[in-house]
Amino acid sequence: MGPTRPRPFRRPPEFRQGLYTRAVNTISFARGVPAPECLPVEELAGCARVAIERDGAAALLYGHTLGYEPLRAWIGERHGVDPARVVVTNGSLQAFHFVLAALGGGRRIIIERPTYDRPRKVLSEFDEVAIDDQGLDVDELERLLIASGPAFLYTIPTFQNPSGVTLSRERRSRLAELAADGPLIVFEDDPYGLVRFDGERLPSVFELAAGRNVVYSSSFSKTIAPGLRVGYVLVPDGVGPELEELVASTYITPALVSQAIVLEFLRRGLFEPNLERVRGVLRARRDAMLEALEGELDGRARWSQPAGGYFLWLELPGTVATDLLGRATGAGVTFVPGVDFGGGPSSARLAFSFASPAEIEEGVARLAALVGSPAAV
Amino acid sequence: MGPTRPRPFRRPPEFRQGLYTRAVNTISFARGVPAPECLPVEELAGCARVAIERDGAAALLYGHTLGYEPLRAWIGERHGVDPARVVVTNGSLQAFHFVLAALGGGRRIIIERPTYDRPRKVLSEFDEVAIDDQGLDVDELERLLIASGPAFLYTIPTFQNPSGVTLSRERRSRLAELAADGPLIVFEDDPYGLVRFDGERLPSVFELAAGRNVVYSSSFSKTIAPGLRVGYVLVPDGVGPELEELVASTYITPALVSQAIVLEFLRRGLFEPNLERVRGVLRARRDAMLEALEGELDGRARWSQPAGGYFLWLELPGTVATDLLGRATGAGVTFVPGVDFGGGPSSARLAFSFASPAEIEEGVARLAALVGSPAAV
Repeated sequence: MGPTRPRPFRRPPEFRQGLYTRAVNTISFARGVPAPECLPVEELAGCARVAIERDGAAALLYGHTLGYEPLRAWIGERHGVDPARVVVTNGSLQAFHFVLAALGGGRRIIIERPTYDRPRKVLSEFDEVAIDDQGLDVDELERLLIASGPAFLYTIPTFQNPSGVTLSRERRSRLAELAADGPLIVFEDDPYGLVRFDGERLPSVFELAAGRNVVYSSSFSKTIAPGLRVGYVLVPDGVGPELEELVASTYITPALVSQAIVLEFLRRGLFEPNLERVRGVLRARRDAMLEALEGELDGRARWSQPAGGYFLWLELPGTVATDLLGRATGAGVTFVPGVDFGGGPSSARLAFSFASPAEIEEGVARLAALVGSPAAV
Repeated sequence: MGPTRPRPFRRPPEFRQGLYTRAVNTISFARGVPAPECLPVEELAGCARVAIERDGAAALLYGHTLGYEPLRAWIGERHGVDPARVVVTNGSLQAFHFVLAALGGGRRIIIERPTYDRPRKVLSEFDEVAIDDQGLDVDELERLLIASGPAFLYTIPTFQNPSGVTLSRERRSRLAELAADGPLIVFEDDPYGLVRFDGERLPSVFELAAGRNVVYSSSFSKTIAPGLRVGYVLVPDGVGPELEELVASTYITPALVSQAIVLEFLRRGLFEPNLERVRGVLRARRDAMLEALEGELDGRARWSQPAGGYFLWLELPGTVATDLLGRATGAGVTFVPGVDFGGGPSSARLAFSFASPAEIEEGVARLAALVGSPAAV
C-alpha cells in the first residue's frame, strides 16, 4: 500500500464482535458493561490453563448439576453457609429463574419501581413498590403484605440497577424481619455489593435474616468478568436438592470450565487485588460523572449519588427521556430511558461503568446541551 | 506414619468431586459419560490460555446473545448455512428448550420410543412413535400426522440414545419430505453423529430437507468435552432474531469463554485428530461389549449393533430390568433400565463409553451371571 493511501479505519475487536451497538464516536451511558480496563485478561488466561491442566477430569466432564464442587465449597465458606445451599449457575439471571420456579409458586410477586429490566420482562405479573433515596419503601411493602397474601420480593438492595440507590441499614433490618416472620420470601440480588467506592459495607438482608426466607444472589460478572457467566444463589436448607431435577432438565450441568477458572482466580489470591483495581477504575468514572452533572446540569436536573456499582439515576423535570434519547443519539450520546425500568417519563439511567472519564465529561456536556435546548421543555 | 499401617485408599478426583455415583469397584454401564481418555486436557489447557489472551475483550464481556460470533461463523461455514441461523448455547439441551418455545407452540409433540430421558422429563405431553433396527417407524409417524394436526418431532437419527440405532437412508429421505411438505417440524438431535466407528456417513435430515422445517442440533460434548457446555442449533431463516429476546431473558449471554476455547481448538486443527482418537477409544469399547455379549449372553438376549455413539440396547426376554438392576448393583455393575426411556420392562441401556474394555468384559460377565440365575426368570 502506498504511503499516500489513508490507512483503513480498524474498529477495535469488541466492535467487530458486535459487542457494542453504539456507532463510532457515540458515548454510551446505556449498557451496564464494565470498562475493558476492568478485565483481568492476563490473569484469567493463566488461570484457565492451570485450572484445566490440574482438574481437567472434573472440569471437562459432566459434574454436579448445582455447580463445580470446589467452587461451591469456596462460596459456602465465604458466606458461612453449608455448600449444599450454594447453587452455581450460568449467570445469576438463570438462578433467578430456578429460584422463582421453586419458591415463587402461588405467591404474589413484588418488584421495586424502578428495577432491572430483565425481571420485568421475565415476570408476567407483578406488583411494584417504590424506592426513594433510602431504597425500597418498606412501609409500602408492609401495607401490601397485610392487604394481600404471601409474597416473593425481587430486590437489589445495594447500588441498585437502575437507580444506584442503597437500602438503608434500618430498612434492611425491617425487610429481614418480614422475611423471618414468614409472609415474605426475599430474593436479594447483589451483583454490585463488592463494587463499593465509599462508606462502610452494610450487612446483607440475607445475613440479617440469618438466611431465613432470604435467597442471596450474586455473581462474578462485576468482580471478575461477565463472559465467564458464573453466578450463584444461597438457598434455604433443603431447596438445593429440590432444584437438582429442574437444573438437570434445563442444561444438565452448568459450564464447569468457567467455574474452574473462577476458582483458580480465587485460590491464587487474585480476587481482592482485582476488586481494588475495579473499584478504582469505576470510582474515577463515578466521580467524573457526578462532577460533570454538577457542572452542566445543576438546578436543571436531579440525580442519585451512588456509593458503588455501575449506574446513576437522572431526573429531568420537563423533559421526556425518550424524546431526549432520540436527539441525544443524533448528538453522539446514549442512555436508557427510565420507563424501561418502570420509572417516570422524565427519568433516565446513566451507566458510568463503560465510558472513560474524559468521554463521560464530553457525554454529559452533549446531554446537557440538549436538555437546555428549547425542544426539551 | 509407620510402614505397617495400611495406606489410606485415595479415591481418584472424579470420585471425590462427586462426579460418579458408582461405588468403588462397581462397573458403570449407566452413565453416558466419555472415558477420561477421551478428554484432550493438555490441548484444551493451551487453547484456553491463548483464547483468552487473544480475544479477552470479546470473550470476557457480554457478547452476542446467540453466541460467540467467530464460533457462529465457523459452525455456519461447516454446515453451509448463514451464521445468523446458528444459535450457540450452554449445551444443546438448553437449545432444545429455546426451539421448543419458539416453534413447538400449538403443535402435537412426538418423540421416539424409546428416547433420551431428558426430553421425556421436559415435555409434559407427547405422543410416541416406535423405533426398530432401522430407526423411527416413519409409516407410523405418517399415520399419526394424517390422523392429527401439525406436529413437532424430537428425534436422534444417528446412534440414538438409548438404542444405538441409526435411521436408514430411505427413512431419512421420507422424514425430510414430511418436514419439507409442511405438517412436521423436525428437531434433529445429533450429538453422536461424528462419533462413527464403521460404515459411511449418512446425510442428516437437515441436509436432505435443505433445512426446511428441520432444526439441526449438535454439540461439542462428545467430540471435545461436555464440561465446556457448548451446544448449538441451526434454525430456519428468521428464527434467530425471534430467539434473541427469549435467550437474553434466560441468561443474557451464554458462557462465551467456553465458546472461545472451542473456537481455538478448532482453529488449531485439533478437532479432527481428536475425533479420530475418540473414535478409536470408543470403538474398542463397543467391540469389547459386543464380543462379551456374544460370549456371555448369546441365545439368552438380543442387543443392537451400534455403528457409533455411546450406547447399546439390550433386550432380556423373561427378565425384568429393574429387578436385574437391583441384583446387578449388588454384584458391582450398573445400567439404566429401558423403562426410563419409554422402553419395555425387559430392556436396558448399556453405555460402553466410560468403562475400559477390561471392565466391560468383567461387567458383562457379572450381568450374564445374574441373567442366568433362577431369580431372573
